[in-house]
Amino acid sequence: MEFSSKLLENAVYEMSQLPGIGKRTALRLVLHLLRQPKEQTERLSFALHNLRSEIKYCNSCNNISDVEICEICASPKREKDFICVVEDIRDVMAIENTNQFKGIYHVLGGKISPIDGIGPSHLNISTLVEKVANNEVKEVIFALSSTMEGDTTNFYIYKQLEPYSVRTSTIARGISVGDELEFADEVTLGRSIVNRIPFENSLKSS
Amino acid sequence: MEFSSKLLENAVYEMSQLPGIGKRTALRLVLHLLRQPKEQTERLSFALHNLRSEIKYCNSCNNISDVEICEICASPKREKDFICVVEDIRDVMAIENTNQFKGIYHVLGGKISPIDGIGPSHLNISTLVEKVANNEVKEVIFALSSTMEGDTTNFYIYKQLEPYSVRTSTIARGISVGDELEFADEVTLGRSIVNRIPFENSLKSS
Repeated sequence: MEFSSKLLENAVYEMSQLPGIGKRTALRLVLHLLRQPKEQTERLSFALHNLRSEIKYCNSCNNISDVEICEICASPKREKDFICVVEDIRDVMAIENTNQFKGIYHVLGGKISPIDGIGPSHLNISTLVEKVANNEVKEVIFALSSTMEGDTTNFYIYKQLEPYSVRTSTIARGISVGDELEFADEVTLGRSIVNRIPFENSLKSS
Repeated sequence: MEFSSKLLENAVYEMSQLPGIGKRTALRLVLHLLRQPKEQTERLSFALHNLRSEIKYCNSCNNISDVEICEICASPKREKDFICVVEDIRDVMAIENTNQFKGIYHVLGGKISPIDGIGPSHLNISTLVEKVANNEVKEVIFALSSTMEGDTTNFYIYKQLEPYSVRTSTIARGISVGDELEFADEVTLGRSIVNRIPFENSLKSS
């Protein structure tokens, strides 16, 4: 692409550095901004700048937060000895939406993924081990996505926690509520049979 | 969506104001930026701010440019009396890529679209009429997309130019080079038959 303006080229280039946004889409987005009032671009530019320079992470769970200790960790209503291990803030938001979890979170900030150069030291694992070592935790619940990387990360943390004989669990995998059995993939269906639960228990939830 | 951070919420909101970017995608993009070095966000924020505050439009053709008169309008090699009317800079870039046009452009900045509240006065039409009235133009070539809005805009400008008896033309519509006839839509195929050209002419191009 040849641009008639360096300013435009530069904006398009930086926009196209975002994941899933190619040069063409970036150009479309930037031209859209040029057609909108100047203030919209200013607000976007300022919000991004502000976010990156002011953002804080909760000292306890590593979730994104505007204060030192996030709302969830600070709440007296949450059971601090049940820790749910998740990848990032999106998972926290998803689980919070269910209103089913009363413990606190531990945000790793990613998954172990040698292909992307992400090893255990890049993740927020040691503080979790510390908490467990200090006997602050009753149960660690793994809620990472069920992929190669997620499973590797689960297993790595599990091994790290082994010496402390803390209770560990992982969220249940199974057929989605409302899904037809015949369309389920066989691994999921297989797991949901192996890990079946007493019928009375299924009456309690929801 | 409930966010644990106002900064994050604000950045996601501003990002989701871009066309085709919903809240979820915006969150994914913003979290990506948080995982990258701080400089990347700074560069994006700065490039957008700079673009919007420094951008200039060519005084002659209204294309985006870093200088008062854009490279194309300033070039002595271009034939200034052949003016190609296009919607925006993307069309200029597309036509320039073909290397088939030696005239100059006239960028409207949009199409007449009552639904979006865009009337003729919002577009850069009067300067084109002026140029034609001043006898500076031999031919006006319409190269707007062949939609309801494009056709309306073509016709409006055509009517404006009528008193000056300037030559007007529109780019040819027809089957794409390399396309199979059987898959072409009937309107396009119909037009390509009505507007057929002498066979010898087809040998010249390409």
